[in-house]
Amino acid sequence: MAKKWVYLFNEVDQAEKHVDDDWEGVRGLLGGKGANLAEMVRIGVPVPPGFTVTTEACNAYLESESVFSDEIWDQELEALRVVEKETGKKFGSADNPLLVSCRSGAKFSMPGMMDTVLNIGLNDETARAMIKLTGDERFVYDAYRRLIQMFGSVVMGLSDDLFEHVITGYRKKANVENDSQLTANDWKEITQEFKTIFRRNASHEFPADPYEQLILATEAVFKSWNGKRAVDYRNASGIPHDLGTAVSIVTMVFGNMGEKCATGVAMTRNGSTGEKIIEGDYLTNAQGEDVVAGIRLTKDISQLKEEMPKAYGEFEEIASRLEKHYRDMQDVEFTIENGKLWMLQTRDGKRTAQASVRIAVNMMEEGLISKKEAVLRVAPEQVDFFLHPQFSIEAVDVAKELGQHFASGLNVSPGAALGVVAFDADLAETWAKKEGKKVIMVRPETKPDDVHGMLAAEGIITSRGGRTSHAALVARQFGKPAVVGVSALKIDLGKREMQVGDIIINEGEWVSIDGTEGEIFVGKLETTIPDIKDPWLDKLLKWADEYRRLGVWANADYPVDARRARDYGAEGIGLCRSEHMFFESERLPHVRKMIMTDLPIERKEALDAVLPFQRDDFAGLFRAMDGLPVIIRLLDPPLHEFLPNNIDLMRELSDLKIRLQHAGNLSEIDALLEEVKEKEQILKRVEGLREENPMLGLRGVRLGIHVPELTTMQVRAIFEAACLVTQEGIKVYPEVMIPLTSHVNELAIQRKVLEAEAMNVMKEKDLTIDYKFGTMIEIPRAALTADKIAQYAQFFSFGTNDLTQTTFGISRDDAEASFMIEYMENGILPDNPFATIDKDGVGELMRIAVAKGRSVNPELECGICGEHGGEPQSIQLCHDLGLTYVSCSPFRVPIARLSAAHAAIK
Amino acid sequence: MAKKWVYLFNEVDQAEKHVDDDWEGVRGLLGGKGANLAEMVRIGVPVPPGFTVTTEACNAYLESESVFSDEIWDQELEALRVVEKETGKKFGSADNPLLVSCRSGAKFSMPGMMDTVLNIGLNDETARAMIKLTGDERFVYDAYRRLIQMFGSVVMGLSDDLFEHVITGYRKKANVENDSQLTANDWKEITQEFKTIFRRNASHEFPADPYEQLILATEAVFKSWNGKRAVDYRNASGIPHDLGTAVSIVTMVFGNMGEKCATGVAMTRNGSTGEKIIEGDYLTNAQGEDVVAGIRLTKDISQLKEEMPKAYGEFEEIASRLEKHYRDMQDVEFTIENGKLWMLQTRDGKRTAQASVRIAVNMMEEGLISKKEAVLRVAPEQVDFFLHPQFSIEAVDVAKELGQHFASGLNVSPGAALGVVAFDADLAETWAKKEGKKVIMVRPETKPDDVHGMLAAEGIITSRGGRTSHAALVARQFGKPAVVGVSALKIDLGKREMQVGDIIINEGEWVSIDGTEGEIFVGKLETTIPDIKDPWLDKLLKWADEYRRLGVWANADYPVDARRARDYGAEGIGLCRSEHMFFESERLPHVRKMIMTDLPIERKEALDAVLPFQRDDFAGLFRAMDGLPVIIRLLDPPLHEFLPNNIDLMRELSDLKIRLQHAGNLSEIDALLEEVKEKEQILKRVEGLREENPMLGLRGVRLGIHVPELTTMQVRAIFEAACLVTQEGIKVYPEVMIPLTSHVNELAIQRKVLEAEAMNVMKEKDLTIDYKFGTMIEIPRAALTADKIAQYAQFFSFGTNDLTQTTFGISRDDAEASFMIEYMENGILPDNPFATIDKDGVGELMRIAVAKGRSVNPELECGICGEHGGEPQSIQLCHDLGLTYVSCSPFRVPIARLSAAHAAIK
Repeated sequence: MAKKWVYLFNEVDQAEKHVDDDWEGVRGLLGGKGANLAEMVRIGVPVPPGFTVTTEACNAYLESESVFSDEIWDQELEALRVVEKETGKKFGSADNPLLVSCRSGAKFSMPGMMDTVLNIGLNDETARAMIKLTGDERFVYDAYRRLIQMFGSVVMGLSDDLFEHVITGYRKKANVENDSQLTANDWKEITQEFKTIFRRNASHEFPADPYEQLILATEAVFKSWNGKRAVDYRNASGIPHDLGTAVSIVTMVFGNMGEKCATGVAMTRNGSTGEKIIEGDYLTNAQGEDVVAGIRLTKDISQLKEEMPKAYGEFEEIASRLEKHYRDMQDVEFTIENGKLWMLQTRDGKRTAQASVRIAVNMMEEGLISKKEAVLRVAPEQVDFFLHPQFSIEAVDVAKELGQHFASGLNVSPGAALGVVAFDADLAETWAKKEGKKVIMVRPETKPDDVHGMLAAEGIITSRGGRTSHAALVARQFGKPAVVGVSALKIDLGKREMQVGDIIINEGEWVSIDGTEGEIFVGKLETTIPDIKDPWLDKLLKWADEYRRLGVWANADYPVDARRARDYGAEGIGLCRSEHMFFESERLPHVRKMIMTDLPIERKEALDAVLPFQRDDFAGLFRAMDGLPVIIRLLDPPLHEFLPNNIDLMRELSDLKIRLQHAGNLSEIDALLEEVKEKEQILKRVEGLREENPMLGLRGVRLGIHVPELTTMQVRAIFEAACLVTQEGIKVYPEVMIPLTSHVNELAIQRKVLEAEAMNVMKEKDLTIDYKFGTMIEIPRAALTADKIAQYAQFFSFGTNDLTQTTFGISRDDAEASFMIEYMENGILPDNPFATIDKDGVGELMRIAVAKGRSVNPELECGICGEHGGEPQSIQLCHDLGLTYVSCSPFRVPIARLSAAHAAIK
Repeated sequence: MAKKWVYLFNEVDQAEKHVDDDWEGVRGLLGGKGANLAEMVRIGVPVPPGFTVTTEACNAYLESESVFSDEIWDQELEALRVVEKETGKKFGSADNPLLVSCRSGAKFSMPGMMDTVLNIGLNDETARAMIKLTGDERFVYDAYRRLIQMFGSVVMGLSDDLFEHVITGYRKKANVENDSQLTANDWKEITQEFKTIFRRNASHEFPADPYEQLILATEAVFKSWNGKRAVDYRNASGIPHDLGTAVSIVTMVFGNMGEKCATGVAMTRNGSTGEKIIEGDYLTNAQGEDVVAGIRLTKDISQLKEEMPKAYGEFEEIASRLEKHYRDMQDVEFTIENGKLWMLQTRDGKRTAQASVRIAVNMMEEGLISKKEAVLRVAPEQVDFFLHPQFSIEAVDVAKELGQHFASGLNVSPGAALGVVAFDADLAETWAKKEGKKVIMVRPETKPDDVHGMLAAEGIITSRGGRTSHAALVARQFGKPAVVGVSALKIDLGKREMQVGDIIINEGEWVSIDGTEGEIFVGKLETTIPDIKDPWLDKLLKWADEYRRLGVWANADYPVDARRARDYGAEGIGLCRSEHMFFESERLPHVRKMIMTDLPIERKEALDAVLPFQRDDFAGLFRAMDGLPVIIRLLDPPLHEFLPNNIDLMRELSDLKIRLQHAGNLSEIDALLEEVKEKEQILKRVEGLREENPMLGLRGVRLGIHVPELTTMQVRAIFEAACLVTQEGIKVYPEVMIPLTSHVNELAIQRKVLEAEAMNVMKEKDLTIDYKFGTMIEIPRAALTADKIAQYAQFFSFGTNDLTQTTFGISRDDAEASFMIEYMENGILPDNPFATIDKDGVGELMRIAVAKGRSVNPELECGICGEHGGEPQSIQLCHDLGLTYVSCSPFRVPIARLSAAHAAIK
């Protein structure tokens, strides 16, 4: 028996059998479009008769180097005979001609990447028959010229411009604006001219034989699979090249044969809000492409109910049937030909994040899908939408048209923000706090002492830095939209302006930034603000919580963050960076004094001055997290971060010395000399602390060992705070975390210091605090020796930012600014390892650490507090590795909840 | 049966039985001293009769909280009876009294850490008997007062000053310089005074009862095991605290009873040269301690042959017997009492490295030890001695006495050097090359463009940097003695002077540095130069080669280094750092141009200019290594290393601007402005290349991918050179190595570029070169994914310097300058991981990499080219991991050969 290359739309059962009853297989065989047309036929939806030539036929054709086998053609003709019988029309007939379209359709949607030819079957003879049948000469010649034009470009590869040029000429001659204003005679003449153009450029006549049209069109669709556009698209989308495309031959139906005809597109639910109302547009007496092209003003689908109540009733019923059948919201095309409804296409409808959530929840409640399916229907990243203001799509389109687009950068912290540009943190703070201005802070890069400005600003722009630069981290932490690494941006801090190309923006002028997309606009764009309190989202996340096994904690340094995290569903604080508090203006002088002095007594004084602040910070955090664990990491960054930059100091010194040369009198000289002396002292200390590679230097636990008083002070602050809130009736579970451990002895030493001081405080207050002692695992050696380390740690927390840096030997800031982008562009790295955990390297170390750690202590609490803790793929890995929890920025807690559920369900 | 707590010297067989015939067990039971005395008795060497109270007795005593059990004391008395019988003397007898010494002796030698009491048995009565017997009142009272003094300080814990003060008074009164000039009467009076002091301070009489003396002395030795000095010593030396000490009771023999008496110390071979000649000193009519104290001029042992031929003959025979028995050179003490030779101690003799080698070789040839044993007898580090000039021990002692010691630092590159101080590389080179001066180059730290000065200098001093700082690496590489990280050193480049404490050394003044010990001296010290061509060493290393399984390759960048490495026995070049050549003065301008330009054409021009130099470099290397493999690593360091430092540039700019303000005329202003512009351009590029953590930045393979022309140029140079020397008849085996791989895709991409260019060159030259392509494994991720990487690499070379940095998250330069020292001092790190491979962390990654790599390619060549490749413990690890070879600096090749043999034999 010959192989079956062609399936009629009503032969879907046979197709299913051929691929062992696998729906994906049917889509693979018939293409998405062909499969859905056949499926609609099966469930009784009216579809114009037709058939599909399989992807297998396409592959056979391509493999045989473009030999169209007789077997395939014979089957195609046979199917055509059946269609003729069904429609009562005849292909090529001079009485009642059958016209068909030839449409490509691969397994995966590749919009606009492959080709379609409409109106096949028209020639001078059949055109005359059509005119006789429809009485509409204009319509027929318009269809005829379209066939020649599409056939010319799709099948013969002629430039479309050749044809459009002619139409433009006719418009000019007739002095009209639109094609719709051209007459029947115009189109007739144009049809003749198109034939001439075809002959001249394709070196032969336009084929009048409908069968020649059909075979050439089928072949052209096959060939289009290997066209450059399609290959590029597949490369970019990761679609395999060996799938092939199917070709569907569909009887033409016309919505433009009079007032009882219409054509339209619709979604079975609202694609923006998810509301259960059919949304769509249609036109009476029109062709499908007219609806999309926006040439004529379309009508809302609700009007169809009044205009053609019967057809609409049928349509409504079909929409509901399709949703039930496909168990998802559908995006459909339809045509009404003389009152008869035809469905031309159905597919899962595109929707906004908000709609996605509501549709999933509603469909579960309607009994269409299960709870698990509802949870899986929403991609975790879609939740982000609810957390940040967004620019409306319209506003962005308008801005782009008006040339307001300024620059693009890395989309490191989502959401939209607008404000006036401020080029330093102090100004940003002053404008925001004192003058109530909305501010966008712009810096080449940010440092810890810029944080007050970043907090006051609406959003942040930097010209340097990568996805995990300081600016990016802080912005995400505080939910501030940010665009960083805008390499085209030239910032002139002297002139107080920034420039891209010819556009200059001065300090104080308005900009709008889209942190979701990484775009910057000149001026003010309109924003819309979705709501995390969305009831559908709330329900969905609660369902997600039923499935997930991973805990979801948050990284938070301040009570306000902790409260937000808890609101969003966080079950603990996985990381409080205790040093962030050191940068605040009341404390920084003490911290600097502590660093500058060589005298233990002065160091003690300085630390004593910081203690009450730290205690209050921690107490606030404990109150916010009443009843939940709070992990506090002891001081981590190198000390020089708390001092001014050495290059700034050198510049200032150089300026001072120049001024000194011009000083007019002795008292001025004395004052300047004094200032020089002071700056030189600071510079000396800064240079003493200078390290070639601070990331690998004196920081983390090394600092705690080097300056044990620092550990003691922080531990005292933690336990005094814990005792204080315990007395208020708050339940407190502090976990003290040592950063950057690489050798178990570091931990052993710090644990001793820490336990002694904790004991001191608890004795003083006559209270017992239930606490844990643990460490970050952020150095490869710690992971590799986790069995030793677990003997001194009650918990591990993977610091995957640092662990990625050391495992790759890549400094995140430097790399994302330079070669990392190149690496991702060239496919050397499949993902940015600072965004998604590198499974083979970093993930392997995590696996080793968990296994070795739990071999010693099976109850070991293992979490992650790096930036990856809020990223879906990484959360999947954490689930697979059996971690206890993930901890992420408060704003990513909902995303993490959903991701963890996905991981558990998958 | 009661436990045996006391063994007579002739009961060693019983002791051996008690510990299951294990000689180490005998040493553990009887202490080193006791065991050797017993052993000498067994082989018939004359030893004064005596016995040993075991370490078990000591431990029992200490455990029972200082209760001396009757059982032990009874056994001690019983043994004493046997000694009385043997000697014919009687303990406490008024006629012929037996005197004994009570000596501590633990399993491991703890020199000076525990106590000894001599002359036990003396009291007024026995003293009189002794006077009658010897006729020497002075001798007897001198011995008596010594007993009281030693007993007072050792047993009663009195201050020795109390006693010495009395003797000083007598010397003054008698107006003499030395104790030897005091009379019998003086000593008699002193003895009386000592008794008074004893009574007054110990609150009871000096015990006249010899048995009381004996039991108290025994207890005192036991207790001394837990004395502070001994505990500290054991902590420092890693000796367990539960071993306990034994106590040997030995019959006193006297070398000072007349002219037929003598006493001396000797080595059975020359401890400095290893020559087979007995070396030693003796005194006639003297006590042992007089020989050591240097109060009297000692005689060479060769004179004893003439003075007492019989005793000497006997001594010579015993020396030979002891060597045969112990199978090692012995260090002995002897006394001749009235013509009768007594051996008082024997132990393995200390020796210089040179002697160690010669003795091992000679003893093997004499049939005393096996070849394996000979190889194991020499510690690998001892070989270093042969490679570098050394200061003579005497010269150092004298310098210290004269206050010439200037400062201490890290001993990073061994050997002695002296020269005049030069504070910059250019001056160092000028003085050395133009004026023929010997120069020591002194810098705060060094950079690649200081190398020409370092090469010209005799030695290097830096105030910053650690064991693997640039200065240290280059110094070791070129065998230049160096002391780095001299933190006390203040260098004032402006004043051209350096200072430690009050001592200031100006540029041009002489200093001497000891890179072996890490010491710096003011002025010129005398050096001695051993020789690597030492025939004994040569023989020993050849024997070592018979055993080792690891190959020994060398790191060499220049032909001269390669030749030296080959001379020293290297079997290949494991690492040629191709970038070192970039720093040479003819090439640096081209390299800088390559970096500064944005134009591909200019970059190409610059690279083309470098190509011939590189080709010649490689050709030279290939010629030197004719027939052996040469691994060339492609460019590794970040580009900014080839440009001036940004801080220097800023300083220069600041100076220029000040000068500009004072410029007198227009042409001067123009010239200055031009200079400013140029510097600003360079500064801009330098700042563009600036990275926060260059160690983790754009370097290694990342550079090769970023600037593929660089890879192409280097590969072309390698293959053109290979073709060139092949035509000369040289056998060449190049291996091209990619540095800093972290992802297999990096390797895949570079391999493609490389193979294409290699093929181009081979086609052009019509030759086929047999080459390998491989990668450094110096990033944790590379080790963790070695199975993937091995699919693209024919060899792995562990870069353990970088691998240690990333595995620990520690920057070597920064760390060794700051907390690493602290870590080692506090025992947080047992060893410096930059000196000895960290087995648990870095070693584990190496294990994973070898296992995963060989799982894909069982023939995978695995080597190591980090600094650790020349360090014995690390070589042991490399052997255990099954590496193919170790590669180290040429100067360490002999050490590595011996270490590899040790590893294989163990």
